[in-house]
Amino acid sequence: MYKQTIVVRADLKMGRGKLAAQSSHASLSAYKKVSKSNPEIIKAWEMEGQKKVVLKVNGEAELFEFFQKGKDAGIPCEIIRDAGATQLEPGTYTCFGAGPWDEKTLDQIFGKLKLL
Amino acid sequence: MYKQTIVVRADLKMGRGKLAAQSSHASLSAYKKVSKSNPEIIKAWEMEGQKKVVLKVNGEAELFEFFQKGKDAGIPCEIIRDAGATQLEPGTYTCFGAGPWDEKTLDQIFGKLKLL
Repeated sequence: MYKQTIVVRADLKMGRGKLAAQSSHASLSAYKKVSKSNPEIIKAWEMEGQKKVVLKVNGEAELFEFFQKGKDAGIPCEIIRDAGATQLEPGTYTCFGAGPWDEKTLDQIFGKLKLL
Repeated sequence: MYKQTIVVRADLKMGRGKLAAQSSHASLSAYKKVSKSNPEIIKAWEMEGQKKVVLKVNGEAELFEFFQKGKDAGIPCEIIRDAGATQLEPGTYTCFGAGPWDEKTLDQIFGKLKLL
């Protein structure tokens, strides 16, 4: 079983539209990375219904910590910075996307984090 | 200039994680559609920074209305139904993604809708 995990900073208190847009950036960026490296995983994930899970961290330090852990585990991850036209300081790191990748590995790395 | 528009039902009062996941489904599904039909638009949109805008409607009828308007205008659109494991009735239509497509056409069709 495969899923995609999106990890979002809860401390930024993004508005709902900003949250949706930033999460979509993360999802799409990680998807493209896996499309190149592991197209067979993309196919399997799509067959299974494209499961996505959104988890939260409480600050930039924790975002980077888990982003690094994901990469160290070999999971394709892409971190997102906001262009900063509204709401946030330009260049604020908001979230990252991980995978789609196998569910067990994702749970080992990100299983401690709570659902957003 | 190109952008992607995501139109979300505000009346469902989805939790933040559900909102982020459903919007990501819409974004990715519409992206894949355009990748096949108009890869040159994907390239231009990515060069320009992958602008995304999230708008709201107030019910299923309005969601379908604007989904149909988008398709009638020739914009690649993909509507999303929730699998319904949590929060929503299984099969609830939650949102759709439109494009990336040229900003002027999107604004003509969806310009009346407010930001989520």
